[in-house]
Amino acid sequence: MSSLFRLDASIRQDGSFTRDIADRLVAAAARPDLSITIRDLGNAPLPSTAWAGAVFGPYTPADQRTPEQVEGLTLAATIADELLASDAYIFAVPLYNYGVSQHFKAWIDLLLTDARFAPGTESPIAGRPARLIVAKGGGYGPQAPRHGWDHATGWYMRMLVDVLKLEVELIECELTLADVTPAMESLRPQAAQNLAAAQARAEEHGRSLSARLTIAAAA
Amino acid sequence: MSSLFRLDASIRQDGSFTRDIADRLVAAAARPDLSITIRDLGNAPLPSTAWAGAVFGPYTPADQRTPEQVEGLTLAATIADELLASDAYIFAVPLYNYGVSQHFKAWIDLLLTDARFAPGTESPIAGRPARLIVAKGGGYGPQAPRHGWDHATGWYMRMLVDVLKLEVELIECELTLADVTPAMESLRPQAAQNLAAAQARAEEHGRSLSARLTIAAAA
Repeated sequence: MSSLFRLDASIRQDGSFTRDIADRLVAAAARPDLSITIRDLGNAPLPSTAWAGAVFGPYTPADQRTPEQVEGLTLAATIADELLASDAYIFAVPLYNYGVSQHFKAWIDLLLTDARFAPGTESPIAGRPARLIVAKGGGYGPQAPRHGWDHATGWYMRMLVDVLKLEVELIECELTLADVTPAMESLRPQAAQNLAAAQARAEEHGRSLSARLTIAAAA
Repeated sequence: MSSLFRLDASIRQDGSFTRDIADRLVAAAARPDLSITIRDLGNAPLPSTAWAGAVFGPYTPADQRTPEQVEGLTLAATIADELLASDAYIFAVPLYNYGVSQHFKAWIDLLLTDARFAPGTESPIAGRPARLIVAKGGGYGPQAPRHGWDHATGWYMRMLVDVLKLEVELIECELTLADVTPAMESLRPQAAQNLAAAQARAEEHGRSLSARLTIAAAA
């Protein structure tokens, strides 16, 4: 039995590009012996008081902790347990306002308060495979007027690759707002191409992830 | 009468470097005719459900909105009003886990849902003066092992300068964790220098901000 962890950070359910691409990846990876754990931060974000609660809770005697401290410490252990119990990871996170998902940042901040993931310790999930899906409303490539305005993907990769030490493959999809933005009308054919390419890439990566887990389970 | 807006995002009260530097800036700017509005996100973060509530609330008839939608829309208007009513701005925001403050990101996301600050509209506070204080536990300069790991300051500047169109002066303070981190012991003299320089710069910028508001009020 292998276990796949999926994190969603889109605040949309219907019409979310990251969710659609992640759905295809999961469908391509699916096997009878693969269980899936879902942490849906878009639908159920962590409380904004959890992080400080988990940071300061340990300095307070257990019977004097505030409700926020108790909740923060409990949630930190829960999300750390979820990662530790999984063999592979899918992170489906949009770029929002040229920056990171606030809910994914809150999740990382909280995770790193757990002693098992504390800065300075070796990542307990180092070397495990992960797929990062990033959807962006606009275009941020070298030719785009807003080249350099994607302040999210670099940090996502930093945390997953350099801090958590996962083996990450990145699946990006740009121009997702073209269909609903009149000023982006001329970009719609490119947007459709981008989406089809990201979906195909997700399906490939679902199959490669599944194959890798099969080999690991047989080893 | 001029009005100064101060935003704090440090989750610490005692021992916070951004709060200390901002205190000095405010003290140097203080005048009898200057009122100060404080939005303390570190002490009282916005609820993590507010943003999605404010995004989706307008698509729901007013009498059918969820409590999160009502709260999100109310908070968005409140924080937009605070900015509009101010003549100058201080943002005191740490770098956390190589990235942005989750609470500051939540504040920006929510702010931009208010129609007056909506993407595509001209910023209603364009040209007003601001000071951005960023504290960082480590060092991120060209010689540092983690050069390039500051994924926060670039986004902070992007939002304040390019999106809100404020005239921003940046006050950075690096190595703030040196005093409490044994492995950083050799960096403590540099850390003390950095702090003294940031404090002095904050006092200068408090005076220049105060002078600018005086001239504007007299004009």
